[in-house]
Amino acid sequence: MASLEHMTSLEQQYADLQASGLTLDLTRGKPSPSQLDLSNPLLALPGEGDFRDASGTDLRNYGGADGLPELRAIFGELLQIPSDQLLAYGNASLAIMHDTIVQALLVGVPGGDGPWRDVPDVAVLCPVPGYDRHFTILESLGVRMIPVPFVDGRLDLDTIRSLVASDPSIRGMWCVPMYSNPTGVTYTVDEVEALVGMETAAPDFRLFWDNAYAVHHLTEAEPLPLDVLGMAERAGHPERPLVYASTAKITFPGAGVAFFGGSRVNVEWMRARTSAQTIGPDKLNQLRHLRFFGDAEGVRRLMRKHRAIIAPRFAAVERILGERLTGVADWTHPTGGYFVNLEVPRGTASVAVALAAAAGVALTPAGSAFPYRDDPEDSNIRIAPTFPSPDDLEAAIEALCICVLLAVERSN
Amino acid sequence: MASLEHMTSLEQQYADLQASGLTLDLTRGKPSPSQLDLSNPLLALPGEGDFRDASGTDLRNYGGADGLPELRAIFGELLQIPSDQLLAYGNASLAIMHDTIVQALLVGVPGGDGPWRDVPDVAVLCPVPGYDRHFTILESLGVRMIPVPFVDGRLDLDTIRSLVASDPSIRGMWCVPMYSNPTGVTYTVDEVEALVGMETAAPDFRLFWDNAYAVHHLTEAEPLPLDVLGMAERAGHPERPLVYASTAKITFPGAGVAFFGGSRVNVEWMRARTSAQTIGPDKLNQLRHLRFFGDAEGVRRLMRKHRAIIAPRFAAVERILGERLTGVADWTHPTGGYFVNLEVPRGTASVAVALAAAAGVALTPAGSAFPYRDDPEDSNIRIAPTFPSPDDLEAAIEALCICVLLAVERSN
Repeated sequence: MASLEHMTSLEQQYADLQASGLTLDLTRGKPSPSQLDLSNPLLALPGEGDFRDASGTDLRNYGGADGLPELRAIFGELLQIPSDQLLAYGNASLAIMHDTIVQALLVGVPGGDGPWRDVPDVAVLCPVPGYDRHFTILESLGVRMIPVPFVDGRLDLDTIRSLVASDPSIRGMWCVPMYSNPTGVTYTVDEVEALVGMETAAPDFRLFWDNAYAVHHLTEAEPLPLDVLGMAERAGHPERPLVYASTAKITFPGAGVAFFGGSRVNVEWMRARTSAQTIGPDKLNQLRHLRFFGDAEGVRRLMRKHRAIIAPRFAAVERILGERLTGVADWTHPTGGYFVNLEVPRGTASVAVALAAAAGVALTPAGSAFPYRDDPEDSNIRIAPTFPSPDDLEAAIEALCICVLLAVERSN
Repeated sequence: MASLEHMTSLEQQYADLQASGLTLDLTRGKPSPSQLDLSNPLLALPGEGDFRDASGTDLRNYGGADGLPELRAIFGELLQIPSDQLLAYGNASLAIMHDTIVQALLVGVPGGDGPWRDVPDVAVLCPVPGYDRHFTILESLGVRMIPVPFVDGRLDLDTIRSLVASDPSIRGMWCVPMYSNPTGVTYTVDEVEALVGMETAAPDFRLFWDNAYAVHHLTEAEPLPLDVLGMAERAGHPERPLVYASTAKITFPGAGVAFFGGSRVNVEWMRARTSAQTIGPDKLNQLRHLRFFGDAEGVRRLMRKHRAIIAPRFAAVERILGERLTGVADWTHPTGGYFVNLEVPRGTASVAVALAAAAGVALTPAGSAFPYRDDPEDSNIRIAPTFPSPDDLEAAIEALCICVLLAVERSN
């Protein structure tokens, strides 16, 4: 009788929710307009007379394939990468990731045994849950994905080591080493040492090291990225990490600067592969960012302003989830990055997401954080708290909680 | 005796040239600083409060994969392409060309029989002399190039038709339809009709239609680009042309906007292929260009200012070549574009270029305008008159003429 009352109550809450006519969007990790406003000075930079770098080069013309040295120095400091091993490119690190994998498929990478397209069943390890767009790149290029679930919120190093040691068709692994999308996991020194040091059956195994959230802290702790390139060199596998980063969630997502870092050999390879594609990146946009940041501390100051805007939103998500879903679901407590990862009871995620959609709350489709959109547990929901206004966010999370509870009730 | 005096005289002139300590550069088709100055207002655009398109979309954030509709409309008008068949991307049309060929190799194009990498000895026709970077793309991706020399300054349509009709390994052809690099040739209606209408053994033959110089007129005649997409559709081969263009030589070469045009089917294919690579182009740079141009007439006005700067430089080249090389060499008389194509006596181009280099005048290496840098006649020299100042240009062309004459003398 108590149970029936509870269900009626949840069904009623959901009916009320549908009647309230919400249209809220938690789908993507997008900065909110108030975050974008922080970078509005970029819109008038560099200014009419300003088009030369420190060496006097006219940045309006062709050339400068490596990108603006002064901006590479700033992000070298932030990413712990020597600036001569860090190239500054266009507006999308995703495009650089795609391109490195394309080049690996068509021509191969240094130290390899030829183009990856000639490797039977070429495959890449994908820690899950992970970033959907990483998986889309591989799916679009026909590269096999092997999911490796996180265990208790950590990389499953035993499984990873065992797979790469025995299977030469495995040529790479996706890594989001800081504030992983969507789990918020940051790799430890021991984990990074394991990844750069492990024996691999493939001679040219690569870590696709997407340091998308290297300066995106949600607390006063501002840990530096680990020096993955130095660690890989000391482990005897200097060519293993390919590092990616961008200003997408520092300034303007569509109009920022992306970076590629690697060993000197990998950087030389990238230079050679890029030289056939372009005469150079948009150096004026790089100058615009240089003028806006000033130095690495300028980036850190800006990121603290982002934190002041978004940390309260993450706190609101935690509070509401704690009030409504304690004992029913689990969720992450990120100290950086852009997501909260919600784990609901097995078999209820897709129903909950569908209920939310029908009530006007858009979420990333259930399964998105898995290769081929296949969440075998149907339990993972990614929450992106940054974009909605605080009021909208709270309404959306309250609604999501009702949908999760109702999905759980209906499944029992 | 007269001949000996002549040689002595030329050797003396060359010795004087070397002693004069020139350092001049005619290598690349780069706008001069005074041309770049025309676009300096871009450096402060769009301005601090300006970040929305006509529909109110916030262009600072992710999204808008097709590019800014208002800018696509302007270049649709200039390129004679419906704006819904024209996508606005990043800063380099070369990167789009590279990407379409990569995608053709890895996944194939609409109407095809699979990825081009599975086509034995896949090949692309290359009218020669042509654009070195087109050839570099194919060489870097291992695609075989078949040179087809221009005949009397026109496409050799008989050879082209015969090759594509009989050989299914030929999947494409490079075309610079207006003011070709480096010959200055503009395709006629009959030629375009032949290219879009010809029978091909390959089911998915593509014309890589690089309309790099569509608005780059050197005279008051301002012919419109031919409607290659409409002509291809009427010929029953709507998917054949893939159109590329950019603002590289309209505003700032490194910091402009590039475009991709095609049939609706090709555009949909491109959208799908691009969606795995990026969340969208730099829409703020597109807005910056929209504000600067205003409309298509704004682009035309700007190009007339370019013409006022560079047409006298082309005239100076013609004058000096006429004074020094009449009866010895032939050269083009371009009415648009960025190059003068110089044809020197067989077997003397590389010597002339080497002599010029030793005298401080840098030219594109002899053979650059041919696949694999192989000019079988060793007769082609590309002159790029736009970048040097008028005085430097005249000095460089005078020097080049001495080097050509000396190379010819020494070869006799």
